[in-house]
Amino acid sequence: MGTSRIGLIGLGTMGAALALNMANNGVSVAVYNRTTQRTHDFVDGAGELADRLTATESLEDLVAAIAPPRAVVLMVPAGDIVDDHIARLRPLMDKDDLIIDAGNANFRDTIRRAKAARDDGVPYLGIGVSGGEDGARHGPSIMGGGDGAAWERVAPILTAIAAKHDGTPCATYMGPDGAGHFVKAVHNGIEYADMQMIAEIYGLLRDGRGASYDDIAALFERWDGGPLQSYLVEITAKVCAAKDPRGAGPLLAVIEDTAGQKGTGRWTAIEAQHLAAPVPVIEAAVAARNMSALKDRRAAGEARFGAGAQAFDVPGDATLERALIAGKILCYSQGFDMLSRASADFDWSLPLPEIAKVWRAGCIIRSAMLDDMADALTDSDTSLMLSGGFANRLEDAMPALRDVVARAIAAGHAVPALAGAVTYFDTMRTARGTADMIQGQRDFFGWHGFARLDDAGRDHHGPWVD
Amino acid sequence: MGTSRIGLIGLGTMGAALALNMANNGVSVAVYNRTTQRTHDFVDGAGELADRLTATESLEDLVAAIAPPRAVVLMVPAGDIVDDHIARLRPLMDKDDLIIDAGNANFRDTIRRAKAARDDGVPYLGIGVSGGEDGARHGPSIMGGGDGAAWERVAPILTAIAAKHDGTPCATYMGPDGAGHFVKAVHNGIEYADMQMIAEIYGLLRDGRGASYDDIAALFERWDGGPLQSYLVEITAKVCAAKDPRGAGPLLAVIEDTAGQKGTGRWTAIEAQHLAAPVPVIEAAVAARNMSALKDRRAAGEARFGAGAQAFDVPGDATLERALIAGKILCYSQGFDMLSRASADFDWSLPLPEIAKVWRAGCIIRSAMLDDMADALTDSDTSLMLSGGFANRLEDAMPALRDVVARAIAAGHAVPALAGAVTYFDTMRTARGTADMIQGQRDFFGWHGFARLDDAGRDHHGPWVD
Repeated sequence: MGTSRIGLIGLGTMGAALALNMANNGVSVAVYNRTTQRTHDFVDGAGELADRLTATESLEDLVAAIAPPRAVVLMVPAGDIVDDHIARLRPLMDKDDLIIDAGNANFRDTIRRAKAARDDGVPYLGIGVSGGEDGARHGPSIMGGGDGAAWERVAPILTAIAAKHDGTPCATYMGPDGAGHFVKAVHNGIEYADMQMIAEIYGLLRDGRGASYDDIAALFERWDGGPLQSYLVEITAKVCAAKDPRGAGPLLAVIEDTAGQKGTGRWTAIEAQHLAAPVPVIEAAVAARNMSALKDRRAAGEARFGAGAQAFDVPGDATLERALIAGKILCYSQGFDMLSRASADFDWSLPLPEIAKVWRAGCIIRSAMLDDMADALTDSDTSLMLSGGFANRLEDAMPALRDVVARAIAAGHAVPALAGAVTYFDTMRTARGTADMIQGQRDFFGWHGFARLDDAGRDHHGPWVD
Repeated sequence: MGTSRIGLIGLGTMGAALALNMANNGVSVAVYNRTTQRTHDFVDGAGELADRLTATESLEDLVAAIAPPRAVVLMVPAGDIVDDHIARLRPLMDKDDLIIDAGNANFRDTIRRAKAARDDGVPYLGIGVSGGEDGARHGPSIMGGGDGAAWERVAPILTAIAAKHDGTPCATYMGPDGAGHFVKAVHNGIEYADMQMIAEIYGLLRDGRGASYDDIAALFERWDGGPLQSYLVEITAKVCAAKDPRGAGPLLAVIEDTAGQKGTGRWTAIEAQHLAAPVPVIEAAVAARNMSALKDRRAAGEARFGAGAQAFDVPGDATLERALIAGKILCYSQGFDMLSRASADFDWSLPLPEIAKVWRAGCIIRSAMLDDMADALTDSDTSLMLSGGFANRLEDAMPALRDVVARAIAAGHAVPALAGAVTYFDTMRTARGTADMIQGQRDFFGWHGFARLDDAGRDHHGPWVD
């Protein structure tokens, strides 16, 4: 009979870090990797933690090394490889043994796998793990989904290895089946948006004001001591300050302006469409990455139309800071609204305040503001942007965001995400919008009918043309 | 042996109109509807066209009524109902008999069905039909996809019933499997964007300038005589001018500002994500519809933050017209770029100039500008916005769009699609963007690495933190 408390498959960057994190927290782990050499190298290189790590050379050995009822963490690339591992593992396991997919699964796959597990009467968890390698090693943010009883069983391990915010572990059960991976996807969508808005402010400073990289670094460092305090603002300062080891210049000056994406931001945008949840700042951020990849086309555009990123009278530091605060609140408000919509659609009962709390440490979007967001979401059942404290902050900060965007657009600077934030705000505070025109057009050409303001029933105008 | 040249299943609004259109063009049609009474009512009500219509009461009768090699048009709701009909029809048909799905299928379903048909060695077509009931009856725009030889077989019928632009039929084969339905989806995405930008200009006039509905109608009617000449601008004038039959007032004033959508705009936004094709104006238009549905939330926003749609110094008519011209060019440019990307990804060889031509008549987005777009896309292998004539028009019109958006944003008016057009333009004419920051951040927290401007290889900075 095995004695390891848990098993882990996949010793890539994230898997290895997670195994060390568990061992470091007193949890004995049986580990397995497709390449046996990697498994042994990993355990041999684990120093004093090696005592708590058991190298295994086959899935059979792995299962045999774990104390029942077993739990096995999959840390393998998302997609078919996960299905493949489940198919190979299940026959080796007992009925109450637990498989935990801790990779970057699309939540729809997790829903499917959780359903299959339920049909088979076996437990299954899909957990989102955020924080990169450093987080996985020293404390990630963990968003759990799936079988609630199974979560309780492994919660002691997951809370032990998770990041702590003032002592509270950032590991929370979000709901059934795909809830954990869904929350992680929205986290990544917000991350895209946060990064894009920072990049736009950086562009205004670099090209509009002509500030040096060091000055920009100093500004973000200063902001990191105020309301914008966050991991992303902190590292933005460090990225700005970094020097190229190959030369004397700033590192950013040699980094190509084409951003990659691993697809999770895209998933958020796609699911927002399925949910009919408006997330324009996230969409703008994903589109901006796609546009960044079209470098030749952008160069041709500049050659034809002239550069947009020219010097202009960029608003002052305090205005830029407040603009970023407003943009951030609006993007989080969209994200939490999307979570709320998904919760209703998928019947998940997502705990919004707990989501804000689980993001307070360990993950990429951790920030001081999330603490207040957790409170706001506890106290209010409306949108974040309408909740007490944040409505006040928005009221204070919107003139700055408006000023920055209007002036950037007038000057020709690209600010797609910040502009998306402003137009979202203005749309969502316009009681009488302009969709009456769209409904009129649709009734004209497609006889779709429309609702009347003065009558509960639907109406159809006709004949539109005599 | 049957004698009808073609069969048609589904006598809803679109199916009935299409059958009459065919009969009107000398094509004998065997028709079938699930409800037999509807079939007989339809034929009985067809007047002098009834001679060319054969009512059938079962799928067996329908197939028997058609002259081989047969062709049957499905005009049934998209989704499982199409699969269901194919499954029931095929056993009744010969190997070279053709099924044509003329409904609003998602192109991915059409790809799947076309593949299944190829595997079975039977012909299949998926065709997008645009133009609403009026188009279906008197001349729709038809975008064909699937088996090329099968298209040739029914092309005489389809070109006969299609809309004509200066005598040229708007019925074109777009490419294999889902190509026709994909082109139709992008058509609808552009339609959403066009309508939303018009609605935003309408809002600026109505709320910002305080213009009367009649004045707005007159303005759009005037614009319909200029570069903006198009079906949507034409009907916008008529919608603005319409009076409520129940009272004395303008009809628009009683239409609720909550727009519906049947999902095709959403599909375009989703597929753009899969293709990594930036279509921010289309995305903004879809998001605007979703926001329009949140009427209570918008009212709460106005109650908290005050109305955005207040009087301000709205730019003059000529500026608004040029702003709409610029927005329109940019939105079409995004749409054609998306088609180009899909063509490469799906190996379709989509004929872009032919797409512009097929949209010139019969469909909702028909406009004078499409004629020039067909020429521009013939003469150029770059983006529409960079092609000769349209680059010139953009250069002329962008200051107006910039002015309108900057002033609307400063005043608090919601202009999400127009703003999306400006920020797209500025992003796509910025050779040195700001994604260097995003790549720096990603390398910092996720060790993603980055491309260097001064060296072909990838680089990774480290250690970021000592």
